[in-house]
Amino acid sequence: MAKYMSMETLRFLLHDVHNVNQLFSTERYADYDKETIDIFLDSIKDFSDKELFPYIKEMDEKPAYWEDGKIIVHPQFETIVKQAGEMGLVGAPFDYDDGGMQMPATVHNAANFIMEAANNHVPGYFGLTAGAAHLLLSYATDEIKATYVPKMLDMKWGGTMCLTEPQAGSSLSDITSTAALQEDGSYHIKGQKIFISSGDYEYVGNIVHLVLARIEGAPAGTKGISLFCVPKRKPEGGDLVNNNVYTAGEFEKLGQRGYCTTHIVFGEDGPSQGWLVGEPNKGLKCMFQMMNEARIGTGRMGMAIASAAYYASLQYAKERPQGRKLTSDGSKNADSPQVNIIEHADVRRMLFLQKAIVEGSISLMTEVSLFYDYTLADVDKERNHLLLELLTPIVKTYPAEKGKQAVDTGLQVLGGYGFCMDFILQQYLRDIRIISIYEGTTGIQSQDLLGRKITMQNGKALQLLAELVQADIKTAMAYEELQGSAKTLGANLGLIQEVLAKLLPHAMKGNYERYLADATIFMDLFGTVVIGWQWLKIAHKAKAALAAGDTTQTKEFYESKVSTMRFFYKYEMKRTKGLAKIIMNDEEVLTIPTETSMLFD
Amino acid sequence: MAKYMSMETLRFLLHDVHNVNQLFSTERYADYDKETIDIFLDSIKDFSDKELFPYIKEMDEKPAYWEDGKIIVHPQFETIVKQAGEMGLVGAPFDYDDGGMQMPATVHNAANFIMEAANNHVPGYFGLTAGAAHLLLSYATDEIKATYVPKMLDMKWGGTMCLTEPQAGSSLSDITSTAALQEDGSYHIKGQKIFISSGDYEYVGNIVHLVLARIEGAPAGTKGISLFCVPKRKPEGGDLVNNNVYTAGEFEKLGQRGYCTTHIVFGEDGPSQGWLVGEPNKGLKCMFQMMNEARIGTGRMGMAIASAAYYASLQYAKERPQGRKLTSDGSKNADSPQVNIIEHADVRRMLFLQKAIVEGSISLMTEVSLFYDYTLADVDKERNHLLLELLTPIVKTYPAEKGKQAVDTGLQVLGGYGFCMDFILQQYLRDIRIISIYEGTTGIQSQDLLGRKITMQNGKALQLLAELVQADIKTAMAYEELQGSAKTLGANLGLIQEVLAKLLPHAMKGNYERYLADATIFMDLFGTVVIGWQWLKIAHKAKAALAAGDTTQTKEFYESKVSTMRFFYKYEMKRTKGLAKIIMNDEEVLTIPTETSMLFD
Repeated sequence: MAKYMSMETLRFLLHDVHNVNQLFSTERYADYDKETIDIFLDSIKDFSDKELFPYIKEMDEKPAYWEDGKIIVHPQFETIVKQAGEMGLVGAPFDYDDGGMQMPATVHNAANFIMEAANNHVPGYFGLTAGAAHLLLSYATDEIKATYVPKMLDMKWGGTMCLTEPQAGSSLSDITSTAALQEDGSYHIKGQKIFISSGDYEYVGNIVHLVLARIEGAPAGTKGISLFCVPKRKPEGGDLVNNNVYTAGEFEKLGQRGYCTTHIVFGEDGPSQGWLVGEPNKGLKCMFQMMNEARIGTGRMGMAIASAAYYASLQYAKERPQGRKLTSDGSKNADSPQVNIIEHADVRRMLFLQKAIVEGSISLMTEVSLFYDYTLADVDKERNHLLLELLTPIVKTYPAEKGKQAVDTGLQVLGGYGFCMDFILQQYLRDIRIISIYEGTTGIQSQDLLGRKITMQNGKALQLLAELVQADIKTAMAYEELQGSAKTLGANLGLIQEVLAKLLPHAMKGNYERYLADATIFMDLFGTVVIGWQWLKIAHKAKAALAAGDTTQTKEFYESKVSTMRFFYKYEMKRTKGLAKIIMNDEEVLTIPTETSMLFD
Repeated sequence: MAKYMSMETLRFLLHDVHNVNQLFSTERYADYDKETIDIFLDSIKDFSDKELFPYIKEMDEKPAYWEDGKIIVHPQFETIVKQAGEMGLVGAPFDYDDGGMQMPATVHNAANFIMEAANNHVPGYFGLTAGAAHLLLSYATDEIKATYVPKMLDMKWGGTMCLTEPQAGSSLSDITSTAALQEDGSYHIKGQKIFISSGDYEYVGNIVHLVLARIEGAPAGTKGISLFCVPKRKPEGGDLVNNNVYTAGEFEKLGQRGYCTTHIVFGEDGPSQGWLVGEPNKGLKCMFQMMNEARIGTGRMGMAIASAAYYASLQYAKERPQGRKLTSDGSKNADSPQVNIIEHADVRRMLFLQKAIVEGSISLMTEVSLFYDYTLADVDKERNHLLLELLTPIVKTYPAEKGKQAVDTGLQVLGGYGFCMDFILQQYLRDIRIISIYEGTTGIQSQDLLGRKITMQNGKALQLLAELVQADIKTAMAYEELQGSAKTLGANLGLIQEVLAKLLPHAMKGNYERYLADATIFMDLFGTVVIGWQWLKIAHKAKAALAAGDTTQTKEFYESKVSTMRFFYKYEMKRTKGLAKIIMNDEEVLTIPTETSMLFD
């Protein structure tokens, strides 16, 4: 079987770099230990090898489709959904009290990463079900919880989030779906929702939609949006009856074609009954809980696809003989033997770039998951929550944007074969293209980062992050080989401060258009520095393992982490100054007056 | 009809920025004038509107396929091939003596750009036929020329170039196809060739393959490769008879699915007769003529796809209402009207980036084509030829790599719709992915640039280019608004010199591996500076037109050129210092010893 991810690297990141084991000393996670999670992750790898990876290509070739008001997905989903339920893959991170296993998100995200690297068309079904169940647990009435959540945690019923409408796109203030209060306290929901991932599929008994809509008479904008639980079939006297939730179509997509993306119409042929979740007009706040989880999950999916692409291109590079080493006069000697292309410097650049993006991203996902777990475990709650908030747009966007570049680079390693449908790189390129669009585009994530997260509590989150990074810089200085990179990282922290010092006055003067005009460039800068931080941590632990003669992994394994850190600092960290200069440049190009929009013709 | 390119911009680049009219004062092109070429290009636009653009989506959805030893292409090709023959689209640039119209390459490339922007699945058929015919005219015997060339120029017969073999890929020194000399002076050709663009299709009477093979007993490597003309059907006594050229398959591809890419087997079921073109063992040198033409054509195809994607995303951005302008406290007022997304700064960034890449590339193509034309016209022949040689890898690679980024950005403008098959952006994204692979990957082009072109004649070509750029800097200084950019461009010329001063000693010491290790980064740097030069020229002519009150185009048109130049210098030129620092960094990461290749696992 082809390799799609590295269990060794994942374990090294969890145990050595991020010391997940420390989490198990908290009360919440006291039932876990290193051995339990290693066994669990091995079982996930086994499941992925057997049930997920062998179907990735076929799910692309035989995509989900609409027929007679329902979506038909690949038949392997029957096995997958059943086994996922039995293994408790959806319910695992939930509280014991809610029927879960109280598994750390750090471990659960690692498990999902494995599954998504094996087959990125699958785990979204679980993730949305878990997210919807979590939302119900947080805000719904006890009756709703009891009715829906246990079946969802067992993956007997699926869940979705229904936000987007055709006329509004990402602008949620403009949604027009309506909710009319009924005498029994429930609502009749009416409206159209598009791009609904996991919106309809066989092999589950029901689909539970979490829907944003406006209660009649609600104020305009985001302050008038409420959240509802609207099942496809409503439980009535022990039965499930039609709730007029109609599947109007399936969007045919560039990638992730096995993962359905549906058009759903509520209340067209009769009332779709829904129940309010949380308070009226506060639906958006509730939904953000699920959106934040989905954003981390989306980034994780991006790094997983990039991981699979990396190993596919690596295998090719190791096995494909082509060309020769250059001689000392710059020519190639036809009598010398052909070499495998992994020997060529430019192919190594392409492999290093992929490895740096993939492993740096997994490391960040682990870091961010720990902030989440410590928040739940009530350890340094405010601090961990702020760090989680700050880094959520990064862990979503870095693997989306740079993962896209990684997969593109992987395809390039194969030359002409990369463009052929017989090789899987072209599929990964198509699959990963959605990651920078799902759950808020890169533009939106960047505005969230610069417009909300950097400024919240007067920059408190950024200050906490800077302290963390400074501490890691200090530790890394113990190794001479890491000192240069550690200093570079420190200088980059200063660079970010410098950029903000230049930008923030625009916000203070009320010129938010100008403040946020280069938010996407700032995201690129900030994300690169954050991943540079992760690589310094990784290299530090690798150096420590080498120094201690640790034999958990091979010497080459640890050396490879240090080499990749060196690559990242030589090739990627060199981009930051240019990005900073773009943002600090006073010339206004993007915020020219509106009447000149014809300038683009 | 949707817009896919701008005739106004093309004319402005040809006439104003690059003064193509000056070419008509040479003897070779004396029959041309501004009016003739405007009429010609309008007719090409008309042809493209009617016969090419309406079929672009369908050719993707119903791709070329193999059946019973032949390739079936979309039926519209029957009309297209016939009309192309009648319009003289293949023969136009050939000499009068050879049956052509002696059209400047500058004009012919502009025409092909229009056609490729309309439908990039089509013009490759013409381009390869022209390239093969040109190769025969340059090196074949009079008998071969008389037999094949006239039919090819009329597009009654097609042409191909057959280089790649499964075991050799881009490493042409390893090709193993054989040629056995026969008593009549012809050869029997045996071997397999893959990835043969335009390799087989209906609607032409014959296909003329230009094949690289080894004459029995030839030396190993590139010094033992010869070039042969091997027709699919050989002319015999007025008839065309089977020549045992078997079409073994069609490669199913990610994009350009209407353009066939075939697997061809020579001499398997009987002898495939071929005739030597040029001298024995000098085939590679001959083939390079065609490859250089094909490289320019490939880059042109990339910028054409990016142009079509740009206008598709621009139309969406102008028509799609979503979101609102930010208020002075950074919030959005739900009572204020929605705006079209073109009003958002980040969408403008995405549009500017595309426009800058597309128009900068077209300008470079025009510049390069003029070097070619002046070489043919015997004006400053050596100088123009050297500049052509130096810039060929750039005009191939910049639109390949940055064009890919442009199309990706265009898709992003559409958000979720960009990922849907109903919108064409996803097709352009797939189509353009081949451009950085065709005719030598970016890695190979970069080695050509740094390893051959920069060093040839002791750096003469680069010196000539620097003189040209300096002259344009000097002219641009006349306008105050351009002075900053002009100085930046000058500084970047210096930066390239600095990089080379640091790199060249590696080559002088015989360490070519090290010299070329970062060739791809150098390509990125050099390409960006070259396009920056083009933008300075464009902005200068736009400023001049504004100053003179020129009404050929609207004021907004000229202003848009200046704005896009400002965008390019603010956002793209800021990347060059970082790239230079990567190359000048002494740390060796890519050229680590070979035994550590397991480091990538």
